Amino acid sequence: MQETRLDTARIRAARPVIDPIFLDSPLYPCEALEPVLGCTVSIKLETANPVRSFKARGTELVASMLADNGPRAVVCASAGNLGQALAWSGRGRGLDVTVVASRFATAAKLDRIRALDARLELVDGDHEMARERAAAIARRDGIRLLEDSLDVETCEGAATIGLELVDTAPAFDTVLIALGGGALATGVGHVMKALAPEVEVICVQPLGAPAMTHSWRRRRVVTTDSTDTIADGVAGRRPIPAVLNDLLLVADDAVLVQETSIIAGMRMLLDHAGLVVEPSAALGLAAILEDRDRFAGRHVVTIVCGSNVDVDAYHRWVRVERSAWPTAEF
Amino acid sequence: MQETRLDTARIRAARPVIDPIFLDSPLYPCEALEPVLGCTVSIKLETANPVRSFKARGTELVASMLADNGPRAVVCASAGNLGQALAWSGRGRGLDVTVVASRFATAAKLDRIRALDARLELVDGDHEMARERAAAIARRDGIRLLEDSLDVETCEGAATIGLELVDTAPAFDTVLIALGGGALATGVGHVMKALAPEVEVICVQPLGAPAMTHSWRRRRVVTTDSTDTIADGVAGRRPIPAVLNDLLLVADDAVLVQETSIIAGMRMLLDHAGLVVEPSAALGLAAILEDRDRFAGRHVVTIVCGSNVDVDAYHRWVRVERSAWPTAEF
Repeated sequence: MQETRLDTARIRAARPVIDPIFLDSPLYPCEALEPVLGCTVSIKLETANPVRSFKARGTELVASMLADNGPRAVVCASAGNLGQALAWSGRGRGLDVTVVASRFATAAKLDRIRALDARLELVDGDHEMARERAAAIARRDGIRLLEDSLDVETCEGAATIGLELVDTAPAFDTVLIALGGGALATGVGHVMKALAPEVEVICVQPLGAPAMTHSWRRRRVVTTDSTDTIADGVAGRRPIPAVLNDLLLVADDAVLVQETSIIAGMRMLLDHAGLVVEPSAALGLAAILEDRDRFAGRHVVTIVCGSNVDVDAYHRWVRVERSAWPTAEF
Repeated sequence: MQETRLDTARIRAARPVIDPIFLDSPLYPCEALEPVLGCTVSIKLETANPVRSFKARGTELVASMLADNGPRAVVCASAGNLGQALAWSGRGRGLDVTVVASRFATAAKLDRIRALDARLELVDGDHEMARERAAAIARRDGIRLLEDSLDVETCEGAATIGLELVDTAPAFDTVLIALGGGALATGVGHVMKALAPEVEVICVQPLGAPAMTHSWRRRRVVTTDSTDTIADGVAGRRPIPAVLNDLLLVADDAVLVQETSIIAGMRMLLDHAGLVVEPSAALGLAAILEDRDRFAGRHVVTIVCGSNVDVDAYHRWVRVERSAWPTAEF
C-alpha cells in the first residue's frame, strides 16, 4: 500500500519506551453483549490505567524524547484526555507542562489535569480555539507544541494498541475505532493494514462532529462551523491534512452515528459490561446498533478509549436513555 | 513460617495453565481516590475478563486437570462467580458442569451461568445449603466436587494475583483482600508471606457475614446461623477448618465493615475510578473509610475482585448512598 507517515518498526520500538502500566490492556469478549448486538464483541479496555484513556501511550513517547534531549517545556491543546496524559507523562520526567482547553471542557478532565500539576489555561471558545492558543503560547515561549494526531508520536503511541490486537488470538473481523483528530484511527489502522490486512477498519464519529468523516468521504479536508455532540473527546472541526492523508490509506469506512445511539452504547457498557465510559468510548457500540445487519455474526473489536466523564452528566445521560430506549429492545 | 497447604512453586507453575485472558490484570494507582481516602490506593482490577471476577484463575486449573485425566463431569456450589468461572473453563474443555446455587443468589450471576451452558440447580436456602446439595450430587453421580477454598487449586489460582502484585513495582505497604471462604485471602496472603513478607495482609469481611473473621480472631472455627449483607460473594456461615488454618498463617489482620461503608466504597469506585463493582469488591475501600488513621499516608493495594451485580440493585445502592453520605464527607 501507499505509505502513511507511521512506521511499523518505530511502533514496535515504542513499546519499551511506554510505561508498562499503559500497555497490554485487557482484551476480552463480552458475551453478555452478544444477544443484544447480534455479533461477538471483544472489548479492548484502555481505561484501567492512571489517566483512564489511551492517550498516555503517545505522551509517553513525547515526554521521553523531551526528557532525553528536547526542551523541558511543552504545551498542548486538549479536550482533556491528551492534557491529562501529557501531565502524567511530564510530571514523572520533570517536564513543565501547559495544557490549553476550552472552558466548556468536561470538568472532571480539567480537574485531573490540575491535580497532575500541569498549568491549565482555559479559552473562551471551543477546542479549535484552544489549538490556536496553544500554538501561540509555543511561539511566544519557544517551547514544544504537541499537536495531537499531527505529531506522529501521538499516532504511533496509539498504534501500539494495534500491535496488541494483532498479537492476541483469536482473529477478529472488524475493529471499530473512535474518530476525532485521527491519532487513534490512523495508529491502529496503520498496524492493521500492515500486519492484519484482512481486518476491516471502521472509524466512527458522531453526526454532530462529522468533519473528519466528511473529509474522508470526499478525500479532501472539509471543515464545519460548529460541533454538537456529548462526545467531547472527538469534537473537532478542522481536520489536519496530513492526518486525513493517512486515514485515507488505512480506513475501510467511516460512519456517523446519532447521539441517542452513543448514549445507548454507554448504557449497554454499563449494564452488560460493568463499565463507565465516556461518550467517545461508546461510538463503536453505537455503530453496531445503527447497522446490526452489517455486523451480524461477525467478531468485532471495539476500543473503549476513555472513561473520563462528569459523574452527574453521565448519570443524566444513562438515565434518560433508559426511558427513551425500552429495555426490551436491547 | 509454618507452612500453608499452598506451594509457591506450584503457584508459579499454574500461570501457563491459566488462559492468559485472566492473567496480568491491570494494577494502577487511582490518584483521584487519594484526596478522599488520605492514602495511595492502587487497584488490582480482576473484572476486565470474560467472567468479570478473579475466580477463573482457579477454575482454569481445575478444568485443565479434569480435561487431562479426570472425570469429565464436575459440580460446584457457588454464590455465582465460581459457577460462572467453572462454566467458562469447562465449556472450553468439553466438560459437563453443574452449578448449585441459592435461589436467592444474584440474578445476573445465575443468568450468566446458564448462558455459559452449565446445568444450574437452585436450592431453596442459602449458600451453605447449596454446598450440601452439591456434595450430595457429587456422591450420587460419582463426579468431581469442586469445593471453593478447600480445593487448593482455587487458592493457588487466586494466588497468581499475588505473584503479579509482587512482580510489579513499585512496592506497597498493605494489601486489602475480600474475605469469604478464604481462597483469595489465603492465596494472595501465602504469596505475600513467602515473597514480600513486609507487606501487611488485611482481610475484610462484612459485619453481616463475620464467620471467618470471628474464626480467625478466636483461632477456631466459629459458625453463624445466618448472614445479612449485600456482599453476596463473601456471605458464608461455616468456615472450612483447613482454610482457617492457612488464614491464621498468612493474615496479619481481619476486619469487619458496615454495609454503609461497602456502599460508600462502591460509590467511590464509580465516581472516582469509573468502575461498577459488586459489593465484595468494595470491601477494601470500606475498610479504609472505617479506619482512615490506620492507612493515612500508606500505599494500599485493593483487589477489585468482581463486578457481577444486578443492575437495578446496584443503582438502588449507589443512589441511596449518595443521599445518605453527603458528598462533602468524601
